[in-house]
Amino acid sequence: MKAIYPGSFDPVTNGHLDIIERAANVFDELVVAVAVNKEKNPLFSVEERVELLSKACRHLSNVTVDYFSGLTVDYVARQEANVIIRSLRAISDFEFELQMALTNKRIDENIETLFMMTSAEYSFLSSSIVKELAELGASLNGLVPECVEDRLVASCVKRGQEAKTR
Amino acid sequence: MKAIYPGSFDPVTNGHLDIIERAANVFDELVVAVAVNKEKNPLFSVEERVELLSKACRHLSNVTVDYFSGLTVDYVARQEANVIIRSLRAISDFEFELQMALTNKRIDENIETLFMMTSAEYSFLSSSIVKELAELGASLNGLVPECVEDRLVASCVKRGQEAKTR
Amino acid sequence: MKAIYPGSFDPVTNGHLDIIERAANVFDELVVAVAVNKEKNPLFSVEERVELLSKACRHLSNVTVDYFSGLTVDYVARQEANVIIRSLRAISDFEFELQMALTNKRIDENIETLFMMTSAEYSFLSSSIVKELAELGASLNGLVPECVEDRLVASCVKRGQEAKTR
Amino acid sequence: MKAIYPGSFDPVTNGHLDIIERAANVFDELVVAVAVNKEKNPLFSVEERVELLSKACRHLSNVTVDYFSGLTVDYVARQEANVIIRSLRAISDFEFELQMALTNKRIDENIETLFMMTSAEYSFLSSSIVKELAELGASLNGLVPECVEDRLVASCVKRGQEAKTR
Amino acid sequence: MKAIYPGSFDPVTNGHLDIIERAANVFDELVVAVAVNKEKNPLFSVEERVELLSKACRHLSNVTVDYFSGLTVDYVARQEANVIIRSLRAISDFEFELQMALTNKRIDENIETLFMMTSAEYSFLSSSIVKELAELGASLNGLVPECVEDRLVASCVKRGQEAKTR
Amino acid sequence: MKAIYPGSFDPVTNGHLDIIERAANVFDELVVAVAVNKEKNPLFSVEERVELLSKACRHLSNVTVDYFSGLTVDYVARQEANVIIRSLRAISDFEFELQMALTNKRIDENIETLFMMTSAEYSFLSSSIVKELAELGASLNGLVPECVEDRLVASCVKRGQEAKTR
Repeated sequence: MKAIYPGSFDPVTNGHLDIIERAANVFDELVVAVAVNKEKNPLFSVEERVELLSKACRHLSNVTVDYFSGLTVDYVARQEANVIIRSLRAISDFEFELQMALTNKRIDENIETLFMMTSAEYSFLSSSIVKELAELGASLNGLVPECVEDRLVASCVKRGQEAKTR
Repeated sequence: MKAIYPGSFDPVTNGHLDIIERAANVFDELVVAVAVNKEKNPLFSVEERVELLSKACRHLSNVTVDYFSGLTVDYVARQEANVIIRSLRAISDFEFELQMALTNKRIDENIETLFMMTSAEYSFLSSSIVKELAELGASLNGLVPECVEDRLVASCVKRGQEAKTR
Repeated sequence: MKAIYPGSFDPVTNGHLDIIERAANVFDELVVAVAVNKEKNPLFSVEERVELLSKACRHLSNVTVDYFSGLTVDYVARQEANVIIRSLRAISDFEFELQMALTNKRIDENIETLFMMTSAEYSFLSSSIVKELAELGASLNGLVPECVEDRLVASCVKRGQEAKTR
Repeated sequence: MKAIYPGSFDPVTNGHLDIIERAANVFDELVVAVAVNKEKNPLFSVEERVELLSKACRHLSNVTVDYFSGLTVDYVARQEANVIIRSLRAISDFEFELQMALTNKRIDENIETLFMMTSAEYSFLSSSIVKELAELGASLNGLVPECVEDRLVASCVKRGQEAKTR
Repeated sequence: MKAIYPGSFDPVTNGHLDIIERAANVFDELVVAVAVNKEKNPLFSVEERVELLSKACRHLSNVTVDYFSGLTVDYVARQEANVIIRSLRAISDFEFELQMALTNKRIDENIETLFMMTSAEYSFLSSSIVKELAELGASLNGLVPECVEDRLVASCVKRGQEAKTR
Repeated sequence: MKAIYPGSFDPVTNGHLDIIERAANVFDELVVAVAVNKEKNPLFSVEERVELLSKACRHLSNVTVDYFSGLTVDYVARQEANVIIRSLRAISDFEFELQMALTNKRIDENIETLFMMTSAEYSFLSSSIVKELAELGASLNGLVPECVEDRLVASCVKRGQEAKTR
C-alpha cells in the first residue's frame, strides 16, 4: 500500500523524520510531498526542502520525496494512492487537522487521512520553533537532521547580515 | 496489510460502522476486536457484542470480528499485525488516545496506532449516548445498525423491569 | 419568549443563579427545570432541589421552578417552548454540551439550545466542588445562595455522622 | 425579541446561513451585521458582503442585513437590542468567543451573548477554508450559497490574474 | 523557601519523581504530602503510599514525606508554607488544576499554586495507567521507582486471586 | 530566591500586574523582563514598556524591571537565577507555554518554569484585547494601570491621525 505524507517541511525536523520512519515501517511505499503554496514566506525554497528531505531519508529505501501544488487530494489521486498520513501533536493541531481531513473527505471521499501521534520526545518540536531557536543562536543538536542543522545556521547568519544592511 | 480495530463496542454504533467501512476500504484485512476487560458494567456481554458487530459487518468481506483480553499490543502481535486503528472524535478522546498510543508504543515499538477522524455527522455519537437515549425512550433510527436498535430497545425494557422489581 | 434552563442543580450555586438572573433579563419567561434522572447519587432529593431553587429565585418574577424526567426535548415541547438555556464554563463542558445540543437537535429539530458563558468570577464553581468544599468544612460564603449554605452544612454533618456509624 | 448576529462574513457560508435560519426561527427579529474593521485584508468589500448576505437571506422575512464599525456592544445598544448571537464550532472558537463575551459584558452589562452550536455537517466550514478551496480550484458546491459561489470563483480568477501580472 | 507538593500518589510514578526532583532543585525545602481523602478506592493505604514515596525520595536530602486530611490550604498553612506545587500534563489536568487553584486562592489568598510541566517523556504517565498496565501484566520498567514496581506486581497478583475467589 | 518573569508587556495589563504582585509575594526577588524580539510590530518601544512597567510596579520593593534580547534561558542564567515565572490563562496559552517550557528545559536543564494561573477576574484580559479596545474607543478603566491607560489613549489617537494622512 502507498501512502502520501504531505507538509511544508520548512525545514524537516526530527519530529517529521520520526513520523516518516514509523510510516515507512507500516506502508509498502511512502511519498513525502512538499506542498508548494502552504507557507507564505518560507525560509527554504521548495527545491531546498526537497533536497534536505531526500538527504534525511536516504536510509529509507521505500521512501521517495516529491513536491506538488494545488489540492492535496488531487495530488494523492494523481499518485494513485488513497491514504494521506498526517501527524498529531497538540490540541490546535488536532482541530486544524480535523478540519482539513473533513474538507479533504468532502472533496474526494475515496481518500482517507490516517493520523500518527508524534513521539513524546518530539511533542514540543515544530519547524517554527526550530527556526526561532536558530535565529536566537541556540543549539539545534538532536532537533533536526544534521544536514538541516548546517543549512539552518548558514541561512540564519545570511538573514542576519541582510537585516543589518537593510 | 492487516489492521486491528479494538474497542468496547457496547454496542456498535453507526459511528463505529463508518470507521469500519472506511478502514476496510484502506486495509487488505481488518479485524474488529472486542476488548473484554474495558467496560466495567457492560450492557451487552462479549458474545452479544461480537454477534451484533458480525451482523453489522456482514456486507464487508475483508472484515472479521473477534474478542480478546489482556494487553491490546499482545493481541495485535498474536494476530501478526502491526497496525491498530482508533477513531478520534473530541478533545477528550484525543488526550486519552494519545496516552494509550504512547503507552502501547512504549510496550511494543513495532506496533503503530493510526487514527481516523469520525465523520462530521457522527461526531456527537457514542455508545454511552446511545444507551442513555435508549433508556429515555428516544428513537435510535440512524444512530445504530438496525439489529442493534432492536436489541437495545429490548435490553432497556428488560432493565427497566428489573429496576422496578428491585 | 419562553426558555427552559434544565440541569441537576444538586445544589444550585451562585454560578447557576448568575445564569438564571441574566437569562431572566433576556427572555420573557424562564423555567428552571430540575432533571430527575441525571445525577445518580444526588446529595439533595428532587423536592429539596426544587425548594432551594425556588427560594434562591424568589426575587425574579418571571422565573418558575419545575422538575421533569425523560428526554429534555420532550419536556421542552410539553412546555410549548423551543429554547433550551445551558451555561458554558470550561472545555470539557463545551464538548459535553456540544454533544447534548447536537443530540437534542437530532431528536427535535425545532428546539434550539442557546449557551451563556459563566461570569469570570464563577468560572471555577460547580455543584461538585461546592459539595467537596462543604464536606471538608470550608466556608461556602459567596459560592451558593444563603439558604443552600445552611442546608449543605447540615447535610454534610449528617453524612459525616452516618459515615461514622457505618 | 430582537437579536444581532455580528461577524465578518467574508463571505457568508452555509454554516453562517444555518445559524441565521435557526436564530430567525427563535427570535422575532434578527439583524445580521457585518463588522467593518474586523478582517484586515478582506476578499470582499463591506458592500459586497452585505449584498451577498442579503441575497442569501432573501427567504427569511424577519432577517435584515446591516453593517457597523466601532464596538459591537455600542452597535447593539444603538439597535435597542440586548442580545448578541454567535456561533461556536471548535475549541479555539470557544476561547476567543469566551474572551469576547466577557469583554463585551464588562463594557455593557445589559447585553448578553447567546451562543449556538454549528450543525455537525458544517463543523469544518469557515470563510477562510472556503477562500482557500476557491483559490485551489476546488468545488464549493454545498459549502456556500449559490450567489457566493459564483462571486468567489470570479474573485479568485481575478486575483490569480493580478498575481501573474505582479 | 518551603513548598508543598500534595497528591494521591497511589502509587508514586517516575512522572511524580521527576517533578519532585526538579522542585527540590528549586525550593529550599519540599514536603510531599499524601492527601488522605482524595482517592475513594485506593490500591495502596496511606501508610504504604508514604512508605513508597519515602523510599523513592531517599536520595533527596531536602524532601520530606507526610500525609494530611481536610483542606489542602489548611495543611499548607499549618506547615507555615505558602506555596503549593502541582504538575500539569494534559488539557483535562489543566482545567481541573485551574479550578482547584482558583478555589484554593479563594479560601486562602496568601497561598499560591505554582505549576510545573511534566517532562515530555512522562507526558503519558499516570498512577491510573500504571495500575491498569500492572493489572494486565505489562512491564512497568522505567515507569515507576523499583520499589513500587515490586509492590505493584505483588498487589495485582493478590487482587487477581481475590477476584477469582469472589 | 530570585525569579524572572519574561514577556512582551506591550503594554502591561492588570492581569500581568496581578501575577507580578502574587509572584513578588512568593519570591525574595522578582525581575520583570521585557523580551526585545518577541513582538514584531509593537505598539510601545522597549523603553516605553520598561517605563510603564516601572511605574506600575513602584509599590513593590522586591521587583525590578529589565529587558533582554536573545534566548530567555541565557538571560536567566546571566541573572544567576533558575526560575522563570509564566502565567496561564487559556488552553492555547497552555500549549504554547508547554512548548516553550519543554524547549527551554532542553536548552538549559537547570532552569525551571513555574506557572501561575491568572485570577478569574482577569481571565479574559490580554495586551492584544486591550489594544483593540483602545483603538475602538472603549474605556480601559480597571483593565490596565492608570499610567498605561493615558499612554494607550494618546497612542491610539496618534495612530488614528497617522492612518488618516496615509
